[in-house]
Amino acid sequence: MGIVKKIFKKSRHTEEDGIFFDEMKKLLGFKPVNLSHYRRAFTHRSSNKTDANGNPINYERLEFLGDAMLGAVIAAHLFTEAPTGNEGYLTKMRSKIVSREHLNELGRDLSLIQWVESKVSEQHFGENIHGNLFEAFIGAIYLDRGFNYCEKFIYKKVIIPYVDIQKLEGKVISYKSLLIEWCQKEKKRFFYEVYEDNGAEGQKYFAVKLQIGDKVVAKARATSKKKAEEKASQRAYFAFQEKINRK
Amino acid sequence: MGIVKKIFKKSRHTEEDGIFFDEMKKLLGFKPVNLSHYRRAFTHRSSNKTDANGNPINYERLEFLGDAMLGAVIAAHLFTEAPTGNEGYLTKMRSKIVSREHLNELGRDLSLIQWVESKVSEQHFGENIHGNLFEAFIGAIYLDRGFNYCEKFIYKKVIIPYVDIQKLEGKVISYKSLLIEWCQKEKKRFFYEVYEDNGAEGQKYFAVKLQIGDKVVAKARATSKKKAEEKASQRAYFAFQEKINRK
Repeated sequence: MGIVKKIFKKSRHTEEDGIFFDEMKKLLGFKPVNLSHYRRAFTHRSSNKTDANGNPINYERLEFLGDAMLGAVIAAHLFTEAPTGNEGYLTKMRSKIVSREHLNELGRDLSLIQWVESKVSEQHFGENIHGNLFEAFIGAIYLDRGFNYCEKFIYKKVIIPYVDIQKLEGKVISYKSLLIEWCQKEKKRFFYEVYEDNGAEGQKYFAVKLQIGDKVVAKARATSKKKAEEKASQRAYFAFQEKINRK
Repeated sequence: MGIVKKIFKKSRHTEEDGIFFDEMKKLLGFKPVNLSHYRRAFTHRSSNKTDANGNPINYERLEFLGDAMLGAVIAAHLFTEAPTGNEGYLTKMRSKIVSREHLNELGRDLSLIQWVESKVSEQHFGENIHGNLFEAFIGAIYLDRGFNYCEKFIYKKVIIPYVDIQKLEGKVISYKSLLIEWCQKEKKRFFYEVYEDNGAEGQKYFAVKLQIGDKVVAKARATSKKKAEEKASQRAYFAFQEKINRK
């Protein structure tokens, strides 16, 4: 290969890596170190990639690793947050948090599918690809940055926005009603703005902005208007709680 | 309380803590920081202890935590050590390593039962107490020192002495025959010294010392002569492998 071609190839690579690096950094909330782990986390088996020893390169083994790390982080969180729960209770709560349905929701919300490298079209992936990608991504974080960064990411993307022990226990039925009650008590105006939004997979989504006073306090996206409003209310509720805790 | 009594009480506490600290340090291979986690890991529910809020203090919730940490550490180990294994294979191998039977063996080998605080006698504990204590102890390490120390302990006490992928796969049937073969090839004299040994629970154990040349290279203890010899052979085999890897 001529030297000019070599430089051209190298610089092109760097640019591609640069874009992927920036995207991953944004998604992670911290700097990735070895991008190859994240590339693998988005490589579908249909790519038929293999390493120098002929072993397949795709995200399937990373799912196993990510699932284990997620289980450990959620276990530690529940252990601290539910000091009165016995072993059976803790196990049940964890199963709810890491249910296939919930993992799919998490993967979908992060739009992980946009980075997938595959030789089949998205219709062939099946519903569980979102959760599988989410698990594989956690596995990649572990390989790249270790357990503590894994924990950091899971807190930011799973525990803070989604894990609510009261709701999991069925004690809180609707965050929308909690929020409305609070606004009325505090004499604050509130407003849910809902609009339709078509997802990358052609599925219909509803997106909602929740405004309290003059400020948009939360946004959410879900497969029904009701779900999107509930999700936005929950996010707003936790954002308030965090604010109160920080005071 | 008079000042003399106070000092007396404090110093007595310190001495007790000092002994427990030394024992834990020896078991852990590093310094414990907050002994209360380890004390809890050895507190049986029959003690009926509760904290200031009336929540029971015993090791049962710690089992949940330790199980999750053990699962994560073993998953990461298998991910690296079995690069050709798919998700199903990795899951199967992990189940073998963290089987109830295996955890009981680990807890028994570390004689964790000697530290148990309980109001019932040891006969009432049931067979699984050894594995439960082992899991709870891992949970205590996580709370006290975090994931990395947990991993360190699991490598030292579980992975290095026990986890052998070849054996788990059924590829190596007997370490004793491997060892005998090696000794014959290398023209080394070897000798298994077996003696009976009664465990704390009144159960009969067999202990074995394996000598190669003039040196005792491994010791092991098990419920049959054959098992003890096999265990000692496996330990010697891994000790040799580690020596070779370090060169």
